[in-house]
Amino acid sequence: MNYEHGGNIYKYKNSEQIIDFSANINPYGIPETVKKAMYNAIELCIHYPDTSACELRNELSKAYNINPDLFFCGNGAAEIFYRFSIVLKPKKSLITAPTFSEYEKSLLNVNCDIGYYILKEENNFNVQKDFIYNLTDDLDLCILCNPNNPTGCIISPEFMKEIIDVCKEKNIKLLVDECFIDFLIDEDRYSVIKFVNDNPHIIVVRAFTKMFAVAGVRLGWCVSSDINLINGLYKAGQPWNTSVIAQHCGIEALKLKDFPKQTAKNIKLLREKLENQLKSCGFKVFSGYANYILFHTSDCKLHEKLETKNILIRNCDNYRGLGRGFYRVAVKSEQHNLKLINAIKEVI
Amino acid sequence: MNYEHGGNIYKYKNSEQIIDFSANINPYGIPETVKKAMYNAIELCIHYPDTSACELRNELSKAYNINPDLFFCGNGAAEIFYRFSIVLKPKKSLITAPTFSEYEKSLLNVNCDIGYYILKEENNFNVQKDFIYNLTDDLDLCILCNPNNPTGCIISPEFMKEIIDVCKEKNIKLLVDECFIDFLIDEDRYSVIKFVNDNPHIIVVRAFTKMFAVAGVRLGWCVSSDINLINGLYKAGQPWNTSVIAQHCGIEALKLKDFPKQTAKNIKLLREKLENQLKSCGFKVFSGYANYILFHTSDCKLHEKLETKNILIRNCDNYRGLGRGFYRVAVKSEQHNLKLINAIKEVI
Repeated sequence: MNYEHGGNIYKYKNSEQIIDFSANINPYGIPETVKKAMYNAIELCIHYPDTSACELRNELSKAYNINPDLFFCGNGAAEIFYRFSIVLKPKKSLITAPTFSEYEKSLLNVNCDIGYYILKEENNFNVQKDFIYNLTDDLDLCILCNPNNPTGCIISPEFMKEIIDVCKEKNIKLLVDECFIDFLIDEDRYSVIKFVNDNPHIIVVRAFTKMFAVAGVRLGWCVSSDINLINGLYKAGQPWNTSVIAQHCGIEALKLKDFPKQTAKNIKLLREKLENQLKSCGFKVFSGYANYILFHTSDCKLHEKLETKNILIRNCDNYRGLGRGFYRVAVKSEQHNLKLINAIKEVI
Repeated sequence: MNYEHGGNIYKYKNSEQIIDFSANINPYGIPETVKKAMYNAIELCIHYPDTSACELRNELSKAYNINPDLFFCGNGAAEIFYRFSIVLKPKKSLITAPTFSEYEKSLLNVNCDIGYYILKEENNFNVQKDFIYNLTDDLDLCILCNPNNPTGCIISPEFMKEIIDVCKEKNIKLLVDECFIDFLIDEDRYSVIKFVNDNPHIIVVRAFTKMFAVAGVRLGWCVSSDINLINGLYKAGQPWNTSVIAQHCGIEALKLKDFPKQTAKNIKLLREKLENQLKSCGFKVFSGYANYILFHTSDCKLHEKLETKNILIRNCDNYRGLGRGFYRVAVKSEQHNLKLINAIKEVI
């Protein structure tokens, strides 16, 4: 099978020596309390998981002030996209390019006709005002990744509100993937979760994966006030989709209020510094707002050269709408970022 | 959402006091080495899981002497049924009744027309010779659970071979769910895994769930020499379906050769004793071969009465082909089985 994402450390025999910039994981690692909750959960794995993830949904409900029945938890956010496609069975959808490729794959799984809004390099890959004209009456679904992966671009709250209004008017479901939004220092301004209660056209998808550095645990969630959609998600796959360990991980992670906020602040500083360092390497850097940076270089072998230094970066040439020489790197610790820059300087 | 399986301890506030006979989990619990592997895997969860579960499939390959490329690992066996339905998209299928209800649900998810072979009480719910006549040319798929859940019945090796031959001749895919087959003391005689290499019509599904008491971890697998089917399973859902912890759990569990064998021997003795005790309660007991026992009583409130004693049993009245008064109980430890029998004697 062709693997088309970042984070595949497993093809390297010396994987413990690798510094992985190809997956966008919080460099501060798994919080100790979350780790402890997972340790303790192992004993409980003699039981099947709670198929309705009741306690976890109650914690989500408290954290976001939305009825717990409007949440659905998944085996990572990625599972939710596939279930969602099965439930909605959209005939025609609009997504951007470049963006996270699992939207496309999950939609093709149900033979959906997909339109692409091309994000242009000349606009620094930002969604432009003309996006509105692409929200045509024949659409069943529009998916936006905010901040977008791999560009890190965000849609302004004002423009997002316009998009929401047009989608409602034209009866288009709007799925907003906010898996990286907790890396924004002013997350609340940008998240559309505040509109969920009053607008059943919106579905917000999020994950614990990146902020809590639990990519290997698999836990994501979504929320929508379209209760039929939420109930459909339960039926679109097996009942025991989120593990006992994942549920305990999420319950504990939601107790941490300062950790995500402090992480977002630190990552902003580290990102800005790394952006400048990448620019100083002669790369064209596209400024973003998440815990990763997209850049372009004429050196299309950069990833291979860095591999020899045990550093992985995300080669973005397989993203629809990008091409050779585009790379994405995670924002990691000061020390690791420096190793990246030094390695780059050695190989170019 | 209506929950229709056993093992839902979460609806009870005093869940730690409950003795759960409603889920069929090995009473010897999670082996210490497997638990330790899971503990150690928590640190590794900062990485995404290996999407191809390479190391785990290599261990499966060694254990069953089949090419590793012919295995697919799932988030529990249950996930595999749903992916399988998406890939095969069978128009017409044959399943038995009663049996595990997720087959039906996953098939209905792709609008499959389902025929039911009714297992009759007068035959102790055993598949009869006339099953062959139900394997008609218009079928795309036949699913058999061996040993069957909730009856514990097994199909003889000779008759299974007949079924396999007819399926091959009529171009019917045969999915055999062997999730409980490792509780048989002569598993090798009954498993069809030995035919997989030479017959691409067969798909065998198994899980670590029951034998290794890791229901909450979520890990199942399947094997088939139809490589297009296996490749299709990867594409039918998200790439990161099995967690890092689950993969390490499986790798470690496969090292244990004596544990399953010894468990099977012990469970056989415990089951035979529990069967006799249930008979002595006046129940009609259907002898099976797995780590659970189906019985019938005229007392349709037995499960509610036992709940007041903090004992859960599986009310089987929602199984297609069964009705009120049918119950399934797991075979647990000597001490727990005795508590069950004593509680039953108190309430009837």
